[in-house]
Amino acid sequence: MEEERQLAIGVDLGGTNIKGGVVNQNGQILRRLSIQTQAQEGPERILDQIANLVQVLNQGEEVNGLGVGCPGLVELGIVRDPPNLIGWKEVNVKKELEKRLSLQLEVANDVNAAALGELHFGAGKGVKDLICITLGTGVGGGLILDGKLFTGSKGGAGEIGHLPVNIFGPRCRCGNYGCLERYVGAKYIIERAQTKLRDNPQSILPPLNKDGIITPKLIAEAAQRGDDLAKEVFQETGEIIGAALSGAVNLLNPKLIIVGGGVAQAGELIFGPMRRTLAERAINREIQKVRVVPTLLGEDAGLIGAASLILKP
Amino acid sequence: MEEERQLAIGVDLGGTNIKGGVVNQNGQILRRLSIQTQAQEGPERILDQIANLVQVLNQGEEVNGLGVGCPGLVELGIVRDPPNLIGWKEVNVKKELEKRLSLQLEVANDVNAAALGELHFGAGKGVKDLICITLGTGVGGGLILDGKLFTGSKGGAGEIGHLPVNIFGPRCRCGNYGCLERYVGAKYIIERAQTKLRDNPQSILPPLNKDGIITPKLIAEAAQRGDDLAKEVFQETGEIIGAALSGAVNLLNPKLIIVGGGVAQAGELIFGPMRRTLAERAINREIQKVRVVPTLLGEDAGLIGAASLILKP
Repeated sequence: MEEERQLAIGVDLGGTNIKGGVVNQNGQILRRLSIQTQAQEGPERILDQIANLVQVLNQGEEVNGLGVGCPGLVELGIVRDPPNLIGWKEVNVKKELEKRLSLQLEVANDVNAAALGELHFGAGKGVKDLICITLGTGVGGGLILDGKLFTGSKGGAGEIGHLPVNIFGPRCRCGNYGCLERYVGAKYIIERAQTKLRDNPQSILPPLNKDGIITPKLIAEAAQRGDDLAKEVFQETGEIIGAALSGAVNLLNPKLIIVGGGVAQAGELIFGPMRRTLAERAINREIQKVRVVPTLLGEDAGLIGAASLILKP
Repeated sequence: MEEERQLAIGVDLGGTNIKGGVVNQNGQILRRLSIQTQAQEGPERILDQIANLVQVLNQGEEVNGLGVGCPGLVELGIVRDPPNLIGWKEVNVKKELEKRLSLQLEVANDVNAAALGELHFGAGKGVKDLICITLGTGVGGGLILDGKLFTGSKGGAGEIGHLPVNIFGPRCRCGNYGCLERYVGAKYIIERAQTKLRDNPQSILPPLNKDGIITPKLIAEAAQRGDDLAKEVFQETGEIIGAALSGAVNLLNPKLIIVGGGVAQAGELIFGPMRRTLAERAINREIQKVRVVPTLLGEDAGLIGAASLILKP
């Protein structure tokens, strides 16, 4: 392996930070760097930021190329409508970065890149059909089907946060009604806790919460200390995710579901009810065999996966 | 083309009938035969029925092989848990038919076979990513992804009838709650009409319905004659299908949805609200571009698609 040492730079463009790293053929990050995204300044500025970051990371070794994970729809290097980035209706990220850098270049959606990272170096190694889902402010997803990233006809596949939980339910920010994200996005988990607090003044959540801000992390902490209200919040959240995922597994019959994102750090509190509900609701014994596991690469999945676009492990 | 004339026999095994036909490389059925399924008699009898049907169809031309579409999960020629067939927990249909016939043999799920039929010879020609959905007593589906039939890790993919409409909704026959089939399966469309009839005695549906049996076909007839109640039934049905499909298109970003089955014969009555709701609810402008069209091969899609397993067009 030493003889055929391969390196690639992976970049994970987020609305808050741009993270970059030099990744080897084993998926290890040798060196990393993170800068704040100047999201308000428009695409030109951000492309310059990425190019600078890459130049700082690229310190003379033989780097085989650059893989970039971006929010939004990605098709043939063109990024469309990324949420959280201003003025990015449609930007040819591949072409623009090729102007700035002389490196082989590949671009993918950020959650799709994370799915690739898990496939090649993480919890999905050797699995042909898997779904990645990230639970955070938003609920994102990536699909590996028949051993390959599946992006659909226009690079838009994987929007698992916008599967219906209840088509008659409340409006989601995407314009649709009753999407999964509208029930289990971080904001709605907090809302769920706040609603329950009205009838449960004995919960330890308010004393834990010194600065008046409830977060999913704080709710998880209260649940781990045995707080019934907090446990209920995660149970309900896990059940809703499991029920919505039953639709995805009935449709795709994957072998594995990999769950990441901040909310997933609640661990068994959320994985337990999620697994149980999924097993109860999936349509038949073969489809019920799907395993549900936490991410192995965590927050690095996107960066490592972006590099894997070049490493092609 | 004449020089390389290819023929295959396709068989579509259903709970009521076994249909077979000799199909040429253009997807045309040259000769066909249909017999009643002896569904009560168990797998051995049905395998004999299929073998007999094929021997009658195979009249000395150079037939390249036999493709069979079966209900249930299909993996490597093994059929598991087909609904409507008695005693079929697990049957190796490929092996059993190879014992009875000396023909090259392929087996697929029946709705998956129909999706292949539409892909190669029907409404899906030249489309890489498409979803087939059949609306009838049950609601079935098949997926063509990246130009190929996608069957998932255990042959179970495509269960679009068991996407959630409302995870808090009524129990479905599959054991899950609030599945699409539970809202728009033929039986539930009829229930919807019956419920509305209580408050709408002026509807022309009862006079149309001479023998006391309401069917989706009769409701469509009343709607075409301008009956408000009947129009409402199809509008609601189309809207629910469109809303549930928004989840599938958000997940898979297909270019095309092909809709077949008896209920789809209501035409614009159901396609109109389905298309409108899907366009309103799909998450972004690329995903909204999905087209929704009726089947081109109709009830022959399964038979022709089964033959295409051999013809490999």
